[in-house]
Amino acid sequence: MRITACRKEHFNAAHRLYRPDWDEAKNEEIFGLCNNPNFHGHNYDLVVKVTGEIDPETGYLIDLKILKDYIKQEVLLPFDHKNLNLDVEEFKNLNPTAENIAVVIWQRLRKVIDKKLDVSVVLYETERNFVEYSGE
Amino acid sequence: MRITACRKEHFNAAHRLYRPDWDEAKNEEIFGLCNNPNFHGHNYDLVVKVTGEIDPETGYLIDLKILKDYIKQEVLLPFDHKNLNLDVEEFKNLNPTAENIAVVIWQRLRKVIDKKLDVSVVLYETERNFVEYSGE
Amino acid sequence: MRITACRKEHFNAAHRLYRPDWDEAKNEEIFGLCNNPNFHGHNYDLVVKVTGEIDPETGYLIDLKILKDYIKQEVLLPFDHKNLNLDVEEFKNLNPTAENIAVVIWQRLRKVIDKKLDVSVVLYETERNFVEYSGE
Amino acid sequence: MRITACRKEHFNAAHRLYRPDWDEAKNEEIFGLCNNPNFHGHNYDLVVKVTGEIDPETGYLIDLKILKDYIKQEVLLPFDHKNLNLDVEEFKNLNPTAENIAVVIWQRLRKVIDKKLDVSVVLYETERNFVEYSGE
Amino acid sequence: MRITACRKEHFNAAHRLYRPDWDEAKNEEIFGLCNNPNFHGHNYDLVVKVTGEIDPETGYLIDLKILKDYIKQEVLLPFDHKNLNLDVEEFKNLNPTAENIAVVIWQRLRKVIDKKLDVSVVLYETERNFVEYSGE
Amino acid sequence: MRITACRKEHFNAAHRLYRPDWDEAKNEEIFGLCNNPNFHGHNYDLVVKVTGEIDPETGYLIDLKILKDYIKQEVLLPFDHKNLNLDVEEFKNLNPTAENIAVVIWQRLRKVIDKKLDVSVVLYETERNFVEYSGE
Repeated sequence: MRITACRKEHFNAAHRLYRPDWDEAKNEEIFGLCNNPNFHGHNYDLVVKVTGEIDPETGYLIDLKILKDYIKQEVLLPFDHKNLNLDVEEFKNLNPTAENIAVVIWQRLRKVIDKKLDVSVVLYETERNFVEYSGE
Repeated sequence: MRITACRKEHFNAAHRLYRPDWDEAKNEEIFGLCNNPNFHGHNYDLVVKVTGEIDPETGYLIDLKILKDYIKQEVLLPFDHKNLNLDVEEFKNLNPTAENIAVVIWQRLRKVIDKKLDVSVVLYETERNFVEYSGE
Repeated sequence: MRITACRKEHFNAAHRLYRPDWDEAKNEEIFGLCNNPNFHGHNYDLVVKVTGEIDPETGYLIDLKILKDYIKQEVLLPFDHKNLNLDVEEFKNLNPTAENIAVVIWQRLRKVIDKKLDVSVVLYETERNFVEYSGE
Repeated sequence: MRITACRKEHFNAAHRLYRPDWDEAKNEEIFGLCNNPNFHGHNYDLVVKVTGEIDPETGYLIDLKILKDYIKQEVLLPFDHKNLNLDVEEFKNLNPTAENIAVVIWQRLRKVIDKKLDVSVVLYETERNFVEYSGE
Repeated sequence: MRITACRKEHFNAAHRLYRPDWDEAKNEEIFGLCNNPNFHGHNYDLVVKVTGEIDPETGYLIDLKILKDYIKQEVLLPFDHKNLNLDVEEFKNLNPTAENIAVVIWQRLRKVIDKKLDVSVVLYETERNFVEYSGE
Repeated sequence: MRITACRKEHFNAAHRLYRPDWDEAKNEEIFGLCNNPNFHGHNYDLVVKVTGEIDPETGYLIDLKILKDYIKQEVLLPFDHKNLNLDVEEFKNLNPTAENIAVVIWQRLRKVIDKKLDVSVVLYETERNFVEYSGE
């Protein structure tokens, strides 16, 4: 009996979309308002989904308090109330688009979640713009 | 043309997570606050998804009023404003975790929904904790 | 400059609506499904609103982390994952309707929040049923 | 690295469910209140999901402003503040059920979105009734 | 102890904004897309708030099932799945703007709700456009 | 007949809470994570409420498209995708707490909205933290 258990968390962060190897005109053309050199920010909502077999002893797929702790360690502590470009190692040379943030979050969580479980993430940059990544 | 039609419903129930064959210390360790012997409760939100071919005559996959009736008979009448542990047959010997509740709901609905249609359920215990089950 | 600052929290609890001095038929007539002797439950959403002058030094009406702590001490610790009828002193002789729960929460918070600030609460029993109380 | 990027939009429209080749009694039986000859209406919420490889140069799967423009041209301009039965070509001979609206929207978007990308749509007729279509 | 109890309901309806005594150009200028002669529509969300004293016997301000029945009789049966301009008496000579719909709903409910209780309504035409009316 | 019409909009911005005349330790103590010198950010949701008499000719309190334009000019263009501390004149010497942002928005809108109408604003910094200001 394969089931998926999901936990929703959120964090607030500043970011800027741009490539240092492009000139200002090209950054402006491609990233528009998101290229503000003074940064802008978002309330990111994150849903982490893990899939596997229900443990017949507990009736849990995974204790969601444990999943919550993983998300706290791997995502909330390093990302919340931070500037993604300046404060987070992975984005020093990687543009913090929603797509790239989702991939980085997935990679961080994949390292700590039991390999018997599949992992996917949904990252909402706003209520209207969001991405889904499953490591495929 | 395979399509998925979805119906969201909700019910309110009390429950307690524990195993009668474990002592109090072990129940406390594994289930924490959810092990309150006086019970606690939730507003459960349930999304039922059915997948199949659109009926070319009506333009419906399934009349959602019929799906709503199935959910009422199989889930809302037996679960709403109930104590899952004490009032629902299936949980007399099964821990009513979100995972197990989703599986029981899926089994109840699978029996009454046309076998040509696939069924999956999403059960929200809170806005932040939810599970998905497709009978796989 | 009077402003209102608001904090939303939630808790999960079981309850039962009934009066021990009424017979079963009268309790059933007035409280219907909510009178289940085995209890049912809810995810309660709580909004606490405090009104007063902005502190010109900080730009805060009140540090919301402090308000969050008050709510945690006065409401979440005693109410969350509890049976309101059995576990909360105030409801041992008071029917835990949404109205009465809101009044009790307001009284608990009124005692700890600075008297220069007005307090009001909104309590959602479900997304569709909620009450507002301002101590008037 | 396959990822899915999603954009949510909405439109308001009137519609009526019926078949002109059925008599009034049969339309009433099958479509009930939705068969009101004077029409009724909805705020439709639409989520469009596109799946493919992240462009390593921009960090985008697709610039969501471009996806937003496609949705505006293909869905919002022809559907928003319209009567689906009377104002939209595709529904002159097709019953505008949520299922059929989702298929029509998918077909319109499939024509303009890069063939390297998979497309799926979720259409909410109400918060409680919605459909998902992926062109399968 | 004055408290406010609230109930949220919804209905789906078609409407058109225009004045028959204005020519097409003026209707177009003032009402824009909302003047589509073939109608458009909305999922209206309605919150009804009643204010008064808690009944010490029940702990209720008003039994919300009774309030729900009033809303059903006075608003949902006459408005849901209807064309407001053509099917609802009050709008035959009154433009069904959100403001006017809220006033009509308030007047209908005011007639049936106990005069000891104050009544106000909030009507959401969309998630982003809504009105509040208290009969003042 | 006094009524309130409301319009919800949103903007994304970076900010930092601190006072340049306080040392780092005091800023850290009072503003905690919000004092990150590299900034963090939010999706701000803004509800603007205007109150007055319904225009009997149109049935509108105010054409919400006009209110939407005011909000666009006075709030969205100067605030959206901006760094509030660095890019917005008013916050060069004013701490951009939710309270102060709400007051600044109210002052900007008060200047352009017809003086016959009362104005109030609700500003959500997150879903859980929000403020209300009416110019009192």
